[in-house]
Amino acid sequence: MSATVWLNGRLLGITDAYIAPNDRGFLLSDGLFETIRVANGQTPHLTRHLTRLEEGCAILRLPAPDRMLLTQAVSDLVHATNLSDGSLRLTVTRGTGPRGLVPPAMPNPTVLIQGTASTMTVSAPVRLGLSRYRRDGNSPLARVKSLAFLPSIMSRMEASAAGLDDALLLGTTGAVAEASAANILFLREGRLHTPPIHDGALPGTSRARLLEGGFCTECSLLPEDLKTVTGVWLVNALSLTAVSDIDEHGLSLHEELDRRLREFLFSA
Amino acid sequence: MSATVWLNGRLLGITDAYIAPNDRGFLLSDGLFETIRVANGQTPHLTRHLTRLEEGCAILRLPAPDRMLLTQAVSDLVHATNLSDGSLRLTVTRGTGPRGLVPPAMPNPTVLIQGTASTMTVSAPVRLGLSRYRRDGNSPLARVKSLAFLPSIMSRMEASAAGLDDALLLGTTGAVAEASAANILFLREGRLHTPPIHDGALPGTSRARLLEGGFCTECSLLPEDLKTVTGVWLVNALSLTAVSDIDEHGLSLHEELDRRLREFLFSA
Repeated sequence: MSATVWLNGRLLGITDAYIAPNDRGFLLSDGLFETIRVANGQTPHLTRHLTRLEEGCAILRLPAPDRMLLTQAVSDLVHATNLSDGSLRLTVTRGTGPRGLVPPAMPNPTVLIQGTASTMTVSAPVRLGLSRYRRDGNSPLARVKSLAFLPSIMSRMEASAAGLDDALLLGTTGAVAEASAANILFLREGRLHTPPIHDGALPGTSRARLLEGGFCTECSLLPEDLKTVTGVWLVNALSLTAVSDIDEHGLSLHEELDRRLREFLFSA
Repeated sequence: MSATVWLNGRLLGITDAYIAPNDRGFLLSDGLFETIRVANGQTPHLTRHLTRLEEGCAILRLPAPDRMLLTQAVSDLVHATNLSDGSLRLTVTRGTGPRGLVPPAMPNPTVLIQGTASTMTVSAPVRLGLSRYRRDGNSPLARVKSLAFLPSIMSRMEASAAGLDDALLLGTTGAVAEASAANILFLREGRLHTPPIHDGALPGTSRARLLEGGFCTECSLLPEDLKTVTGVWLVNALSLTAVSDIDEHGLSLHEELDRRLREFLFSA
């Protein structure tokens, strides 16, 4: 049952679910997505994801799928697949269109939800390097978890080729933006911070929860100031991962703070 | 017959051709494409496109499809669809993969070729505005016609909403890079130029032909210098289009030069 997906209103086996070759998501990255944690068969932060999805659709001038429909779809998929712990990926594209960039006047969006079972584990600390790829924090798309994800893939592949686990991307301001698929938290002089959106950080859901919970504040981090930082974490909707090194700069692990962050983010 | 595509080695009707929901092209824009002109049932610049595709695959660390195979596929599709004049879109993705950014160690690329019939017409001159979106000319991906095309779509949609035909995107250097889906040519003091790659211009095939043919030279164009420009064209593999206005700046049409460029690019 784990190979079932929800596609445009129907629960389908993975081998029965097809995307049209002229889907603009496939041809032009014309769409966006959410990655949603599933814990004990529940999606505790679904509302937050659907709100961000709707904000993204507004920026893309794409009609947002109905929230009630998506909520039911998520519930149906979780039940049909007996998904207890893991994640859902919710993808929305502008659907099919004629050749070229110009979108159809009345798009018929493609909506796909895929589930993946996984158990939450504490990953070993990871090693990062600075990427050649940049995030444009001035772009309206900087706030959108869009399908145009290739720069992040490339930064991760380059890090991997260099024997590292992940990469830090700078924004066009020159400050640290985020990692390839996670926001960052950094500890300096005993205080926890996260880069602001205008430096190129995606407005991640776990990042927002930590800001709202008073765990951290927004603060820019220039690469030359990395040496003043004593701890760094990668955080996204699914995980919190401590960073052991950024290039030649070694970091401490701060186990007590790590435990508190993890409990706040993922205990429910 | 016009609805036939070539997908992974087979000629298929469009309704029989499917992309898997976990194709990385669909989920993550992990791939690239070429748009190839068809004239009199021939593809006169196919070699140039295949070379750029191979260079792009190398940057993406993606095994390039066999050139002989693609050449045969293009020929088969053109014949099967009786395509005389129009274009082919050749899309290559990293194929399917598990959840997340990390690509499979041994990717099985998806290769799709779609044809569209159209007759070459001389478009009426178009009106442009400056876009909020930027092209990062420093990124290794700046040279790749990748699937991560959403910024270009957004710039075109914003131009359209403002009553304009297309948008000029600046590079991160601050100079003019290109339009949403075309390189630009600009005439200043009687000489024709095109922005250099490091300003964010994609290495377009028609652009390369014009440079090699001695029709233009590379030169940066800052937005504040647009007022010194007397003529502008959009050029890509399929078309040459004169620009009548960039925001408030009116341009001349230079019909004799237009005719010469058009003849060089598209007479064969």
